[in-house]
Amino acid sequence: MVLGHEITGEIIEAGEDVEYLKVGDLVTVPFNVACGRCRTCREQQTGVCLNVNPGRAGGAYGYVDMGGWIGGQAEYVMVPYADFNLIKFPDKQQAMEKIRDLTMLSDILPTGFHGAVSAGVGVGSIVYIAGAGPVGLAAAASAQILGAALVMIGDMNAERLTHARSVGFVPIDLSKSDNLSDLIAQVVGKPEVDAAVDAVGFEARSHGANAEEAPATVLNSLMSIVRPAGGIGIPGLYVTEDPGSTDEAAKQGNLKMRFGLGWSKSHRFYTGQTPVLKYNRQLMQAILYDRLPISKIVNATVIPLSEAANGYKEFDSGAAKKFILDPHGLLAKAG
Amino acid sequence: MVLGHEITGEIIEAGEDVEYLKVGDLVTVPFNVACGRCRTCREQQTGVCLNVNPGRAGGAYGYVDMGGWIGGQAEYVMVPYADFNLIKFPDKQQAMEKIRDLTMLSDILPTGFHGAVSAGVGVGSIVYIAGAGPVGLAAAASAQILGAALVMIGDMNAERLTHARSVGFVPIDLSKSDNLSDLIAQVVGKPEVDAAVDAVGFEARSHGANAEEAPATVLNSLMSIVRPAGGIGIPGLYVTEDPGSTDEAAKQGNLKMRFGLGWSKSHRFYTGQTPVLKYNRQLMQAILYDRLPISKIVNATVIPLSEAANGYKEFDSGAAKKFILDPHGLLAKAG
Amino acid sequence: MVLGHEITGEIIEAGEDVEYLKVGDLVTVPFNVACGRCRTCREQQTGVCLNVNPGRAGGAYGYVDMGGWIGGQAEYVMVPYADFNLIKFPDKQQAMEKIRDLTMLSDILPTGFHGAVSAGVGVGSIVYIAGAGPVGLAAAASAQILGAALVMIGDMNAERLTHARSVGFVPIDLSKSDNLSDLIAQVVGKPEVDAAVDAVGFEARSHGANAEEAPATVLNSLMSIVRPAGGIGIPGLYVTEDPGSTDEAAKQGNLKMRFGLGWSKSHRFYTGQTPVLKYNRQLMQAILYDRLPISKIVNATVIPLSEAANGYKEFDSGAAKKFILDPHGLLAKAG
Amino acid sequence: MVLGHEITGEIIEAGEDVEYLKVGDLVTVPFNVACGRCRTCREQQTGVCLNVNPGRAGGAYGYVDMGGWIGGQAEYVMVPYADFNLIKFPDKQQAMEKIRDLTMLSDILPTGFHGAVSAGVGVGSIVYIAGAGPVGLAAAASAQILGAALVMIGDMNAERLTHARSVGFVPIDLSKSDNLSDLIAQVVGKPEVDAAVDAVGFEARSHGANAEEAPATVLNSLMSIVRPAGGIGIPGLYVTEDPGSTDEAAKQGNLKMRFGLGWSKSHRFYTGQTPVLKYNRQLMQAILYDRLPISKIVNATVIPLSEAANGYKEFDSGAAKKFILDPHGLLAKAG
Repeated sequence: MVLGHEITGEIIEAGEDVEYLKVGDLVTVPFNVACGRCRTCREQQTGVCLNVNPGRAGGAYGYVDMGGWIGGQAEYVMVPYADFNLIKFPDKQQAMEKIRDLTMLSDILPTGFHGAVSAGVGVGSIVYIAGAGPVGLAAAASAQILGAALVMIGDMNAERLTHARSVGFVPIDLSKSDNLSDLIAQVVGKPEVDAAVDAVGFEARSHGANAEEAPATVLNSLMSIVRPAGGIGIPGLYVTEDPGSTDEAAKQGNLKMRFGLGWSKSHRFYTGQTPVLKYNRQLMQAILYDRLPISKIVNATVIPLSEAANGYKEFDSGAAKKFILDPHGLLAKAG
Repeated sequence: MVLGHEITGEIIEAGEDVEYLKVGDLVTVPFNVACGRCRTCREQQTGVCLNVNPGRAGGAYGYVDMGGWIGGQAEYVMVPYADFNLIKFPDKQQAMEKIRDLTMLSDILPTGFHGAVSAGVGVGSIVYIAGAGPVGLAAAASAQILGAALVMIGDMNAERLTHARSVGFVPIDLSKSDNLSDLIAQVVGKPEVDAAVDAVGFEARSHGANAEEAPATVLNSLMSIVRPAGGIGIPGLYVTEDPGSTDEAAKQGNLKMRFGLGWSKSHRFYTGQTPVLKYNRQLMQAILYDRLPISKIVNATVIPLSEAANGYKEFDSGAAKKFILDPHGLLAKAG
Repeated sequence: MVLGHEITGEIIEAGEDVEYLKVGDLVTVPFNVACGRCRTCREQQTGVCLNVNPGRAGGAYGYVDMGGWIGGQAEYVMVPYADFNLIKFPDKQQAMEKIRDLTMLSDILPTGFHGAVSAGVGVGSIVYIAGAGPVGLAAAASAQILGAALVMIGDMNAERLTHARSVGFVPIDLSKSDNLSDLIAQVVGKPEVDAAVDAVGFEARSHGANAEEAPATVLNSLMSIVRPAGGIGIPGLYVTEDPGSTDEAAKQGNLKMRFGLGWSKSHRFYTGQTPVLKYNRQLMQAILYDRLPISKIVNATVIPLSEAANGYKEFDSGAAKKFILDPHGLLAKAG
Repeated sequence: MVLGHEITGEIIEAGEDVEYLKVGDLVTVPFNVACGRCRTCREQQTGVCLNVNPGRAGGAYGYVDMGGWIGGQAEYVMVPYADFNLIKFPDKQQAMEKIRDLTMLSDILPTGFHGAVSAGVGVGSIVYIAGAGPVGLAAAASAQILGAALVMIGDMNAERLTHARSVGFVPIDLSKSDNLSDLIAQVVGKPEVDAAVDAVGFEARSHGANAEEAPATVLNSLMSIVRPAGGIGIPGLYVTEDPGSTDEAAKQGNLKMRFGLGWSKSHRFYTGQTPVLKYNRQLMQAILYDRLPISKIVNATVIPLSEAANGYKEFDSGAAKKFILDPHGLLAKAG
């Protein structure tokens, strides 16, 4: 579990090949590392760049198997292919006024947006988001700006549900019932949504006394409520192996999926790391024109780098906060 | 297992609300029953019509849980909402000359095409089709007309592989290795395809001495070979429950899917019954203009209705044939 | 020029083939007449149905060359293919509370939405709408709910511009300059938008002392401001012939278009009558869930049928109002 | 008029920032110059790159107003942003065997393909291509591999029509009638096609004794035959000004378009320079796997650079040939 990879800052040094950016520019850094020159990058699939990770497709800062790129939670980060990867905020002064919102452009906002878009959310959609953590809230905010009629967000954590309600979403309290269909029907009038987003991933747990792990719980519950011909966006992480799992199948990366249920309803499933560059320019515009108060929606809480360990601890305990590390006091300065 | 639901014939009686068709018209009948008036039909998702099956979304002729519509393997069939569901062949004389090909418009050709389209097959694609039965061959033919550069088709049945090769596809003999990646690499030069189609479904079996069932085998193998950001079309049937399975999870309709593998590669999965009306008009045109010799590709074999039981038996034993029942001698007449 | 074709009402009689609607249902009626059975209807292009107009593709109520269907501004209307064409409001009581908004689902709201969608408006777009009449305002409202960052709306009519500002859009006063690029640059900081909608059509006039007609004025000005690779949605009507024009080319239906300008910028142009059924269900949901106060945005003004002539007169004079005829007092009753 | 910009060759020197290519690689060079770092390049719209031309969006080699990039018909060309712009043929030996076909990947093949794709050509389409020159033939070949049922190609030049027929397309002899609808109806049975491509552009001429210029002739004729809700792809060049025209409107870059006709049929129009990188990888695959014999289809004729002037002369006179300049004897060597 990570606090995410929101990286925003000033350029303090530019390589000699950098043509369109200069020292002092305020930029947003996608969490994906991408070359901008391979097939998948050319096709806007920067989440699975073919050149930046010798192990497999896709690179990221500060992940152990994502190419060895240092950074993320750090004072400085070296960004390769900067002209391709970075987007400069057009007006530095104006950007500083919204810097807490703009910081979300590196990871959780595009990730939530990708989940909503790939689920097929559009104007008038009835939407359910699984998970009221930062990515779930970002998916809910994305559904909202995409024109959704109704956005529900489910969790078992009371604090997170209270926060979700306070920023305009309909909370679904999963501690109240094992039957998601019933909970949805109480809000919608029928046990069905147009689109759903899995913002939880393999760490899903079924509740109850033992709360044993059940990595396919979320996906299976979404198949039960998504309408025929609907889509499921899956930005929540699923791993190829999970050695720490108590479930034998899960250890080998196998999920016990009710795939036949999805098949009988002609569902579509979209998976994978978000290609941030496909979305961050347009989301930046929405923020700059005051249409997407994402910082408030995810309850962004700025802490110094030295407090990172405590931030992780609090986040793991389920706090309804998105922590942002502020190593140079950039956000503190912005007020 | 069924012989499919190819229904083509003359209208012998028309209901009073039928406006645009008349007795004597030669028409193709989609295997889906659809109302043409609900949300999903309006949105071209006739595979999950909301009005023709009280049990769930989607209707079909001759299936036990698909709305109770009689027909399919029969002398006559009553088609509701005929103006919406039927497509008349523009020139009866010309159509009779291609009637064996046109007969495939009801089910396997659109089903194979839907698999290929939803997998993202396009001009220049390297494609793998799992299963060399009629639907697999139709998917291969569809990939071909969509402009694929290379179409491979995998099976363990030698007769089917021989037939696949004879109609222009590259056979992949799954009896030779458990490792699909190796087999693909021998043809392509690397263990990767652009798109894949699962034309097998839950009845997949792993081979070997015991050949125990392994309903997720095909899907898992496809995730191993499809490129990052690629798609998997899944026209092969997956059921919500499989009481006859020897696998406990499968009995409850659960598959042991390596979903994390697909997730790490940003795969997309498309499932469900094919909405035939979305595709059959354009496929009819391709047949009428001599671009899609589907009857030859699936090795269509015409038998009288009285031979149906034998046809099923032969098909179940793995014959490389697509049987067509010809109750009124329409196809026999066409020569 | 027409007041539009918003038709909403109760079913007072149902034909014998009507299966899914009944007397007393409150429904919205698309202005297109469509059969639901031809190729274009099946493909969601109900604006050019092939069966309801012997003269050409596409039917509508109360237009002279659109198939001879009576209705529109009338006490009653006979709707053919009712199951296909009508959408019933799910809860009559709730619908009556929003009946002024829901009334816009027949024509101007889907028409504005189609313009915005086909122009490529999405989250974060900078958008310009030509024309602050009801369709222009509906296009602006649509751009807003599609997530646009900034929505500008241009006109020469001061009253309409004032109204546009009062409902949240940035007015562009075309009486101030012939140079649209300059006016846009004053707002955006550069003379460029991401997408534009022509909600005016062939009746565009250039301003100035003589204000001679110039039917291509709007289109040419939009090409000058839309970004490279941008789109232009054109719901505004262009006619095949305009005998009353003072321009020789225009009389024969020819426009003097600066097509090379659009070509040099790789523009896309989308034209035609809106296929209402493609959009009205989702727009209904947005209204029912309080996300689209379209009645207020277009300044809906309810008048009895007997006042229709005055309504037309006032509308022609440029009043910033959308008149709705209320023959049976349905809207008056709703308050 | 140009012979096109097909550039294929070996890398003889690589800049220091080039990471993924090396001296000796055999590559295809798109005619567009593109930075790979701006918004439009990131969104696959390399035809209107924002960074390589100070005058306007979009760069190309050897055009006067396309950024001043030297090259095209030359012995050597300097390619900026080589990692982004170039595609290396995977196997040099194999590529040399198909080098005449692969040479078309720089311009005419992707241009024809873009025309066909943007017109909406798909499996089963009835297609009309205006112009039997190299781009028209490439559009026809593209329609074919996209699965079109019937591909017609119109011209007034008898030699070109004869060639078009010899490579499998249905020629439409425009010298026989002013009425394209009649000519189409003779082939199709009705005066209608599903999709059309304008491979002529502003240099269209109406025929007859004087054959005066009529730059909108092609577009207007296409609107008359394209079906309701159909698309028109316009890779043929339209200029912003044409000082040499005899038509006053055309001098100012105005076309007399029958736009109302297109509007009444809900047509879509796609214009602009082709973004080659969006298509050339997949077209290369189709060539390498023997699915697209484009060199034969466009009647490629290899000449030395010293013969360029004669090649232009012959091309201008209407020869049914696509000339390829071969400055280093690369193609001659391939045999």
